Amino acid sequence: MPQTAPEGPPKHALAFGGDYNPEQWPEAVWQEDVRLMREAGVNLVSIGIFSWALLEPEPGRYDFGWLDRVVDLLHENGVRVDLGTPTVAPPAWFYRDHPEALPVSREGTRYAFGSRGAICHSSPAYRAASSAITEQLALRYGSHPALALWHVHNEYGVPVSACYCDGCAVHFRTWLRAAHQDLDALNEAWGTAFWGQRYGSFEEIQPPRATPTVCNPAHRLDYARFADATMRENFVRERDLLHRLAPGIPVTTNFMTALSQCESVDYWAWGREVDLVTNDHYLITDGRRTHVNLAMAADLTRSVAGGAPWLLLEHSTSGVNWQPRNPAKAPGQMARNSLAHVARGSEGALFFQWRQSRRGAEKFHSSMVPHAGTDSRVWREVVGLGAHLDSLATVRGTRTVADAAVVWDWQSWWAQRLEWRPSEDHDARERADSFYEALYDRHLTVDFAHPEADLSRYPLVVVPALYLATEATGRNLRAYVENGGTLVVSYFSGIVDEHDAVHPGAHPGALRDVLGLTVEEFSPLGEGERVRITAADGSELTADVWSEFVVPQGAETVWTYADGLAAGHPAVTRHRLGRGTAWYVSTRLAPGALDTILGAAADDAGIAPRAELPHDVEVVRRSGESGEYVFALNHTATDAKVPLPAAGTELLTGERASGGLALPAGAVRVVKLDV
Amino acid sequence: MPQTAPEGPPKHALAFGGDYNPEQWPEAVWQEDVRLMREAGVNLVSIGIFSWALLEPEPGRYDFGWLDRVVDLLHENGVRVDLGTPTVAPPAWFYRDHPEALPVSREGTRYAFGSRGAICHSSPAYRAASSAITEQLALRYGSHPALALWHVHNEYGVPVSACYCDGCAVHFRTWLRAAHQDLDALNEAWGTAFWGQRYGSFEEIQPPRATPTVCNPAHRLDYARFADATMRENFVRERDLLHRLAPGIPVTTNFMTALSQCESVDYWAWGREVDLVTNDHYLITDGRRTHVNLAMAADLTRSVAGGAPWLLLEHSTSGVNWQPRNPAKAPGQMARNSLAHVARGSEGALFFQWRQSRRGAEKFHSSMVPHAGTDSRVWREVVGLGAHLDSLATVRGTRTVADAAVVWDWQSWWAQRLEWRPSEDHDARERADSFYEALYDRHLTVDFAHPEADLSRYPLVVVPALYLATEATGRNLRAYVENGGTLVVSYFSGIVDEHDAVHPGAHPGALRDVLGLTVEEFSPLGEGERVRITAADGSELTADVWSEFVVPQGAETVWTYADGLAAGHPAVTRHRLGRGTAWYVSTRLAPGALDTILGAAADDAGIAPRAELPHDVEVVRRSGESGEYVFALNHTATDAKVPLPAAGTELLTGERASGGLALPAGAVRVVKLDV
Amino acid sequence: MPQTAPEGPPKHALAFGGDYNPEQWPEAVWQEDVRLMREAGVNLVSIGIFSWALLEPEPGRYDFGWLDRVVDLLHENGVRVDLGTPTVAPPAWFYRDHPEALPVSREGTRYAFGSRGAICHSSPAYRAASSAITEQLALRYGSHPALALWHVHNEYGVPVSACYCDGCAVHFRTWLRAAHQDLDALNEAWGTAFWGQRYGSFEEIQPPRATPTVCNPAHRLDYARFADATMRENFVRERDLLHRLAPGIPVTTNFMTALSQCESVDYWAWGREVDLVTNDHYLITDGRRTHVNLAMAADLTRSVAGGAPWLLLEHSTSGVNWQPRNPAKAPGQMARNSLAHVARGSEGALFFQWRQSRRGAEKFHSSMVPHAGTDSRVWREVVGLGAHLDSLATVRGTRTVADAAVVWDWQSWWAQRLEWRPSEDHDARERADSFYEALYDRHLTVDFAHPEADLSRYPLVVVPALYLATEATGRNLRAYVENGGTLVVSYFSGIVDEHDAVHPGAHPGALRDVLGLTVEEFSPLGEGERVRITAADGSELTADVWSEFVVPQGAETVWTYADGLAAGHPAVTRHRLGRGTAWYVSTRLAPGALDTILGAAADDAGIAPRAELPHDVEVVRRSGESGEYVFALNHTATDAKVPLPAAGTELLTGERASGGLALPAGAVRVVKLDV
Repeated sequence: MPQTAPEGPPKHALAFGGDYNPEQWPEAVWQEDVRLMREAGVNLVSIGIFSWALLEPEPGRYDFGWLDRVVDLLHENGVRVDLGTPTVAPPAWFYRDHPEALPVSREGTRYAFGSRGAICHSSPAYRAASSAITEQLALRYGSHPALALWHVHNEYGVPVSACYCDGCAVHFRTWLRAAHQDLDALNEAWGTAFWGQRYGSFEEIQPPRATPTVCNPAHRLDYARFADATMRENFVRERDLLHRLAPGIPVTTNFMTALSQCESVDYWAWGREVDLVTNDHYLITDGRRTHVNLAMAADLTRSVAGGAPWLLLEHSTSGVNWQPRNPAKAPGQMARNSLAHVARGSEGALFFQWRQSRRGAEKFHSSMVPHAGTDSRVWREVVGLGAHLDSLATVRGTRTVADAAVVWDWQSWWAQRLEWRPSEDHDARERADSFYEALYDRHLTVDFAHPEADLSRYPLVVVPALYLATEATGRNLRAYVENGGTLVVSYFSGIVDEHDAVHPGAHPGALRDVLGLTVEEFSPLGEGERVRITAADGSELTADVWSEFVVPQGAETVWTYADGLAAGHPAVTRHRLGRGTAWYVSTRLAPGALDTILGAAADDAGIAPRAELPHDVEVVRRSGESGEYVFALNHTATDAKVPLPAAGTELLTGERASGGLALPAGAVRVVKLDV
Repeated sequence: MPQTAPEGPPKHALAFGGDYNPEQWPEAVWQEDVRLMREAGVNLVSIGIFSWALLEPEPGRYDFGWLDRVVDLLHENGVRVDLGTPTVAPPAWFYRDHPEALPVSREGTRYAFGSRGAICHSSPAYRAASSAITEQLALRYGSHPALALWHVHNEYGVPVSACYCDGCAVHFRTWLRAAHQDLDALNEAWGTAFWGQRYGSFEEIQPPRATPTVCNPAHRLDYARFADATMRENFVRERDLLHRLAPGIPVTTNFMTALSQCESVDYWAWGREVDLVTNDHYLITDGRRTHVNLAMAADLTRSVAGGAPWLLLEHSTSGVNWQPRNPAKAPGQMARNSLAHVARGSEGALFFQWRQSRRGAEKFHSSMVPHAGTDSRVWREVVGLGAHLDSLATVRGTRTVADAAVVWDWQSWWAQRLEWRPSEDHDARERADSFYEALYDRHLTVDFAHPEADLSRYPLVVVPALYLATEATGRNLRAYVENGGTLVVSYFSGIVDEHDAVHPGAHPGALRDVLGLTVEEFSPLGEGERVRITAADGSELTADVWSEFVVPQGAETVWTYADGLAAGHPAVTRHRLGRGTAWYVSTRLAPGALDTILGAAADDAGIAPRAELPHDVEVVRRSGESGEYVFALNHTATDAKVPLPAAGTELLTGERASGGLALPAGAVRVVKLDV
Repeated sequence: MPQTAPEGPPKHALAFGGDYNPEQWPEAVWQEDVRLMREAGVNLVSIGIFSWALLEPEPGRYDFGWLDRVVDLLHENGVRVDLGTPTVAPPAWFYRDHPEALPVSREGTRYAFGSRGAICHSSPAYRAASSAITEQLALRYGSHPALALWHVHNEYGVPVSACYCDGCAVHFRTWLRAAHQDLDALNEAWGTAFWGQRYGSFEEIQPPRATPTVCNPAHRLDYARFADATMRENFVRERDLLHRLAPGIPVTTNFMTALSQCESVDYWAWGREVDLVTNDHYLITDGRRTHVNLAMAADLTRSVAGGAPWLLLEHSTSGVNWQPRNPAKAPGQMARNSLAHVARGSEGALFFQWRQSRRGAEKFHSSMVPHAGTDSRVWREVVGLGAHLDSLATVRGTRTVADAAVVWDWQSWWAQRLEWRPSEDHDARERADSFYEALYDRHLTVDFAHPEADLSRYPLVVVPALYLATEATGRNLRAYVENGGTLVVSYFSGIVDEHDAVHPGAHPGALRDVLGLTVEEFSPLGEGERVRITAADGSELTADVWSEFVVPQGAETVWTYADGLAAGHPAVTRHRLGRGTAWYVSTRLAPGALDTILGAAADDAGIAPRAELPHDVEVVRRSGESGEYVFALNHTATDAKVPLPAAGTELLTGERASGGLALPAGAVRVVKLDV
């Protein structure tokens, strides 16, 4: 049940609800809304995210009456509020007065008002106006008993993160002075001696706008950092204002950690700034298994939160509307999605949005109350989910238990994706997806880790694609192995330092020592080209995209290229170092083939196989003061049995469970173990 | 033979000729031109369309001498004139003085002079200059005996229809005030509460320029209407000037009704403004059968003309030059194309262009007099066509007889094509093409109808894709069925109102009643995904692109989804309502599979099958005071027989015909029935 | 061994070395550099190409100290210098002061600083600044004994050749006045009567910026010529300055003659302006055989040099970094590539670049000293190549012997590639590649020739794609045949004159006489469509992309279309004219099928087949005062034997050779014949 103290999301319940946009409807509908919220067990809604133009219809003139009524109505009905600062949606009058606050593309197009998020984050006018409305909201609602959470802005980083206007040029120079101290250091870091780009003063530096051919990559990498930092400046400004004017209310902003959903934000840095990590997640129809992608996004979100519980602030009850093709969800899929997030650390499940819009860009996006109304499958499943979450209230506060770690770094991804790399077919995200998928299929729960983070608690660490790796990262991974860890590194990792400069000497500069090898040359494969790699026992795997000339310097060769330009060179190696082992995979293997390598590495790490679990039956544990929980999710159309480590109570059915838990096709079960 | 009275195209003959651009050639060539025109039987040519820069070489200084000589020469040779107002081609000096009259793209690129049609239709300077040259032409040639028709501008809507400049912003606001009356109504209609887009004054509204993510669809839809209306304003201004200064001469502008050739013009509205509907049509090499597309364009043109005869003002003797690949026409194809237009209502056949250009953008476009000269297949076929048309003179004034109607609406198409619809694979035009093709293959002649038009004279009405359907449309279709009509509606129809707002309640809001069902959710299929649908008798069809969760509310299920997410839901339904029947097809069927559904609906409508006609043998009737005509066109390489309803005279051969008309491979026959 | 006299590249040795960019490294590295250069036998390096910002750190303040030390150090170590004028890389301060010197795209985007070559070549400021730095360099280094060659700018024409700014508009008008004399001539040449584009004054003419639909092709063609000429003006300005201030030092600029690598430069014109033709060449991974493409580029370069020796100024030791996928070179491939260039006239082999960059856009481009250092395959092969080149010193000054000529014209290519041609699938470059490949596979060495060049010394001349052919070209080819030559012409040649105007009368206007035929109509094939052509003896070939209706006017039909729209028309014809023969191929044949036609034409030309040479064994002769040389390169994985015309000494092994030269798989042999 919701609490009244202004101290964050519902304390002793899992949160349930969604984005609530009453301004799109006549007030008569609001009464039906709260009635249905009670029916479904909704206890938290996000409001006001896009309401700036209604709250401040003219510069400095405020109209809070309607919002007062909404907040009071929710409060009266036991629904707590995640209140947005509407700073993602400056009103039309703002742009009329400040057209320079509209962002500019690399090609010089100034974007127009008419969609959302058209913001130059360097704009002084934007900063002033967004502070003013935030201050007004803090003063008016900061002590309202319904207020659970501040929701600053919305999904920083999409649809645009970087602006290339003249104002940004000025702000970029300030950022560069702080980042590089002096111009000589910048010229050195950017390698401006190449192609004659030396700067004689900071004033000569512009944003990396469209150039006739490829732009200096260090310039672009710093601009990506600048854009991320500039958005974060704006978040911190609002957050500090809210902390000051409304003490005690936690502040969040909704992330989109899935690698397919926001590419421009370094969530490691953002995770440190929010009081509560919240995330938006949508299934992507791109050929990959959506429940695996979901698990990965949830693990990544929890990792950004430092392992602490987090909150799923948006997902969808059924289809979305912004993909090329938007399938509905199958019966039961919404609940399975929701509880998969909970299994991996979310303290509830919220949706975009409560009631489906009749107008605007997202009227074909599913919602809790669909166009078809409450006599509909979606509404019945929403009500069912509310009951499920209610049964799981004691899970709150427990933590998900991980078996292994995957190293991931947004900044390395940004660098790797720049132009003129050895092959366009290699993408760090694809490797992260594929290694994650292989680990998922071994039924391993994964934490993600920053490359310089302490890894010592993990028996196995996988580095799927870490093109940019600092010297400190190299030392960190070496220490991890020397102290007994098992490391698996994929190709094109450890190549450049923080300024996209190749580490001196042979590749992979930052990882030569720990891997016990050098790479003389890369030799990416042609489009669609495949090569075979073979092991001493005659086994064979096929690979694509990449090959290279590996020269062992201490490592043993486990798999060898059987054809292609690298024929005869090692393809996969293993290096014993100190008390640990470091594997290197020099070509692209699909998840199924990666399983062979990861199986051997897991053996090195002493991780027992979970052969008793069927494919696509997902088992995750949460553990904490309130007890030990086993979440079991059956993503298949076949009934399954899941072995339990101990007897316990299944919380959704209330039944006792021991030995093999029956898990019907498509079902979720959550067993609280007897302790 | 051509007439001399200035009262429209040749009165008692079918028109024959083409665009004549003598300004591209030395005057010596003109004499050869008229000699050849006489040889071929040319009786009407379009001139002056691109001649502004020659007629007004400097602002306000006119040079009509050469045009006087051309018009007189044509007149002396019995060729009448379709005289262009050259307002599609302002001279270079105009843009030197008025660079602001060049149109601007959504991304902010101002287009340059150097091609054609680079016009901002909101420009006051353009309006003044185009009125001035039109007035001069009207005064000089308005009473010339050669003048048959005014040809205003050229192909409004291509290559650009909408400009996004600041001048258009001003004009758009004027249009919006008239369309929406007040700002509250506009905010409501556009749903600006979504994503915080509320406008506080009309001055804040801009054209829907490039935005960071998807722009408000109602904003874009209104802009499409504004752009169309603004071009029409310019047409009406010229037309009224011509009517006033040269009374009695009909005014036209050449349409491009084929859906593949101009997307930005609402021809229902334009059809009401012209004195004579004229059309340009070109075969498109896109994998569809070109003769079916031609028939569809011709039917659409006739329908835009309200069923009255119209005139084919441009087509090609052989290949065009602006497709990726431009095949020649096969022997006989040109005549077959020309007479297919005549069968469907055209009062003749004209070409772009008379003599093939040596220079410029279209020098590889075929013409009546090709580069190869008169010792060429093309020229011989041109001469033959002239004789054919001469034989068909009495057809003039008769009307094509239709068997069924297809509902089509350009505005709905514009709305449906905007971003963030459930699936990019669905396109209204494709559905219109496919349903038309299925009807063509049943040998049904089709009228197109506006969704709010009276449909009571048709036994069968097909609605292939009517995403946007007003409440009045819903009432119209319901009344049609209740009064005994048979209606076939395809998926994603009746969804939104005139402002792209979803009708309240379950889909399809405007058509739930008439169809007797609701659609709980859309579930578009993946790329290349196919599903099976089955009937009670075990028949099976395959479908793609779209599926949905249909819930019958009175309709009976005829076909059912056999697999996919919608498995078990109805796929095709039939609803008896009043004295009629309404079918619903909830997935995408290819023309061959549609035939099964349309066959059943035709049975309901009491339309007998024409099983005796071979595939791709086209039979169309024209009827009027002068008699009854049967046009038979054989698009196959096999001789055929066509049953005639009565004996008659074949006009091209002069032979008598009765019983089964012999129709050789590739041939056309036109029988005037004995009455 | 290198020479000290300032008189061009090393006189009695083949040049060996690469781009040397010491400014990217601490001076400590320089000592290692020269030590390694000596180890490898490097005798020439290119320096200073991108050094403007270091040499002139502020406007008018020069810092030559570091370059003095570099030049002296090289000189002390016997390495001569190809000194760049750094005018491809204006410093950041230049653009700060002259933002108008940044080039503008057709769409109006002004490119930014940050990559390379962002130059508006019409800019007066650029001209002044580039003259100033060139003058300084000439004065300071013009008499330095290390100076062998001036290297003006870098790769004119890439990454951008044309700018569309207002300054270019002014300069374009000046160019047009000179090219067309008066406005009437321009209006006539451009065919501005079409689409109403007549200009009333030169001031009305703009660059061919983005237009709503296709721009006047003659306008665009002239702009391509203008852009090329404007770059050449800048080259000539620098060259004349260097000639004046540093007399006796040859001046070059590095070309990229491979048709896949620079499309915007008319190298026929440039070849006349340089003192020494130099070329950059990189293997392109596009599915074609890279060694054939290399041979073609080398032959084209030699032809641009009028048959005289030239110098390969850049190629790569292994993979490049700017293709979508960049494979390494196989062992031995680098030497084979290098010596293939030498066989075809290069006086040495230089690389981009000496030491692999750690930073910037090209750090993944291979180099002579790779990231992996000298304990690497690449370095060992570099040292080996140095020794090979040393063995071949006497080859210097000899000339490659050609068997046949291929007519090629960049301006025709520019014209053919413009929009709205009969088929996008036809590209002149592809035809040139394919005919070249077919000739290569017949083991014929080819010169390229301008269409108006004297062809009388070649028994066989092939015209793969000469869309634009002047009347003079027509006369030249006719005279060639009449005097006994054998000509092979491919389709879509001889169509337009120098202003893209179709020659009067039937196609192919300029070549009707020599070919003895007319083409009534083109009929390009559909995407992926294939047709069969058959010969009298029943042979059959398949073709694609193009067909046409050929009407013989004296020519005999050798192959006939068996299907498609042109079925029954001639496909390949042969015309005896005077003492020679002219073949015409009216469709697209792959190289293997072309061999059949070329075999018959070679018979006509009296060229004996070289059936004794295996496929992909390349044999080329150089001949001159120092003797006769046979270069044999084995591109296969199988050992081969090559017949020698006489006994001789193999220069790389020092062994005697006579009769059949043993040529191991992958090897190169160079035999100096006994004379």
